[in-house]
Amino acid sequence: MNKLRRAERLLIISKILFDNPGKLFTLNYFENIFKVVKSTISEDITFVKETLEREQKGEIVTIAGAAGGIKYYPWIEEGAIIQYLDQVAVLLNDYDRIMPGGFLYTSDIIFDPYHSQMLGRIFATKYKAANPDYIVTVETKGIPLALMTAQVFRVPLVIIRDHSRVTEGTSVNINYVSGSTNRIQTMSLPRRAMKENSSVLIIDDFMRGGGTIGGCLDLMKEFKAEVKGIGVLLSTIEPERKLVKEYYSLFEMETFSHNPENPFIKPNLQLELKK
Amino acid sequence: MNKLRRAERLLIISKILFDNPGKLFTLNYFENIFKVVKSTISEDITFVKETLEREQKGEIVTIAGAAGGIKYYPWIEEGAIIQYLDQVAVLLNDYDRIMPGGFLYTSDIIFDPYHSQMLGRIFATKYKAANPDYIVTVETKGIPLALMTAQVFRVPLVIIRDHSRVTEGTSVNINYVSGSTNRIQTMSLPRRAMKENSSVLIIDDFMRGGGTIGGCLDLMKEFKAEVKGIGVLLSTIEPERKLVKEYYSLFEMETFSHNPENPFIKPNLQLELKK
Repeated sequence: MNKLRRAERLLIISKILFDNPGKLFTLNYFENIFKVVKSTISEDITFVKETLEREQKGEIVTIAGAAGGIKYYPWIEEGAIIQYLDQVAVLLNDYDRIMPGGFLYTSDIIFDPYHSQMLGRIFATKYKAANPDYIVTVETKGIPLALMTAQVFRVPLVIIRDHSRVTEGTSVNINYVSGSTNRIQTMSLPRRAMKENSSVLIIDDFMRGGGTIGGCLDLMKEFKAEVKGIGVLLSTIEPERKLVKEYYSLFEMETFSHNPENPFIKPNLQLELKK
Repeated sequence: MNKLRRAERLLIISKILFDNPGKLFTLNYFENIFKVVKSTISEDITFVKETLEREQKGEIVTIAGAAGGIKYYPWIEEGAIIQYLDQVAVLLNDYDRIMPGGFLYTSDIIFDPYHSQMLGRIFATKYKAANPDYIVTVETKGIPLALMTAQVFRVPLVIIRDHSRVTEGTSVNINYVSGSTNRIQTMSLPRRAMKENSSVLIIDDFMRGGGTIGGCLDLMKEFKAEVKGIGVLLSTIEPERKLVKEYYSLFEMETFSHNPENPFIKPNLQLELKK
C-alpha cells in the first residue's frame, strides 16, 4: 500500500498546485494534509518539480527561509506556444470574420475559456520576469485574456471602464482620443481598484493606433504605477507609427484589400522568452 | 524505474486533465503520449478517477463507445463550498464596502482570479446537470464569474452588452427597465454569438429587482434558447417580489439601516446539490 499512498499524495499535491498557480504553499501545509513527516513531503515536491520541469509543463519555484515554501507557475514552453499560435492564425485567417467596416470578429476565440486560458498563459510566460501586482485591461473584450493572465500570477485584475459607476466610489477619469473613432473618449478607474506605486501589465485584445493603450498609460501615471509590459492579442500593421512604442502583439493584421489567397493575419513568433 | 515511470505518467495525466476541464480525451490520446498499451493507461485513469473521487476533488466521467473517452470536472464538494462561502461572507460584511448611495463594493472579490475561479466552480457544481451549450452574462462585473463557470463545462462565454458594436456585425437589441435606475436601457447581443435552440446558464454578479436578468431572459427568447439556470453572486432581500422567480443567489443582502453589529450579508447555504 505504500506505493499507492505515495501516488495518491502526488496526485492531490498536483491538484492543489495546478488549481492555485502563483500561490505560496509551505511544506507545513502539505504535512498537515497528509500527516507525514517533512522529509517525505520534500521528496514528493522534488518529484513533482522535476517531472513538470523535465516535461516542460510549468515550473515550481522554491522560496527559501522561514516564510518560504513553493509556488507553481503554468508557463507554456516555446514550442507549444508556436504550435498554438499557428493553429489560431488558421482560425483568424477566415474572410467570414470580416465585418462591415473592415473589423475582424474575434469574440468566439476570446470568449472561449480554452483559448483565453492559453492566451493568458502565453502573455504571462512572455512577461514572467515582470512580477506584476495587477493585470490591467480595458472593458470588455480584454477581460477574459487579462483575467487568465492574472490567474497565473495570482494577482487582481483591474478593469478600466468607459465611465465611472456609482457603485464603485471615487474614481479617476481621463480623456483620450480613440484611434478607431477619432473621438475624445473617457476612461475611468475607481481609486479603490489599485494601490499607488504598483507594478502592472496591460493586456488588451486589439490595437490599431495605440490611442486606447496610450490612455491606459496616462491613467496608470495617475496611480503612480510602473507599466512592466503591454500585451495585445491582435494589432494592425497600419498605421506603422503607433502612439505606443513597446508592446508585444501575438498576431499582426494587414489590411484586407489584397489577394484573398494570402493570409492577412500572421502570428508573431519572435517571442524572445526570458529564461 | 517502473514505479517512477508510473508516478510520472499519473502526474502528466493529471496536469492534462486539470488544465482542460470538460474536454473529452480518448485513451488513444494518452497511449500516443506515453507509448504504453491501452490496459496500462486504463489502469492509470482508474487510479486518478478513484483517488480524486474518494478525496472529493472532482469527477472523471467515462463516456463509452467508439467516440468515447474521459472528461474531468472540477466540482467542489458541499463542505468546501459552505466553508468558502462563510469566509467570503466575512469579507463582504465590512461597512467600509458601502459606497455613497448604498451600493456595495465587490470588485476586489469578483476581479480576484482565485475568487472568480471558486465562485465559477460553485455555480457549475450547482448546475452540473444542466449541461449548457453557453454561459451567458451581462457586462462587466459578471464576466469573470461567467468565464470561470464556462471553463468548467468547456463552453463559450456569451456577453450581453449595453449597445451594439460595429465590430460584432448584426445584433439583436432589446429594451428593458433597469430596477436600479428605473430607466429604459438597451441590451445587445451579436447574432453570431450564439446558435439558436441552445441551452444556457445565466450568471451575473448582482440582482435587486431582477430587471436586468429579466431582460436577459427576453433576449434569450429571441435566440430560442432554453435557460437551464440563473446564478447570481449577490441579491438583495428587498424587494421581495422580483421579476425573476427561480434563481440561485450565493449571498443575500439586507438593507444597511440596521444595527451595525449584525451581519447584513448572509451566505445561502441551501445548495441543494444534485448527485
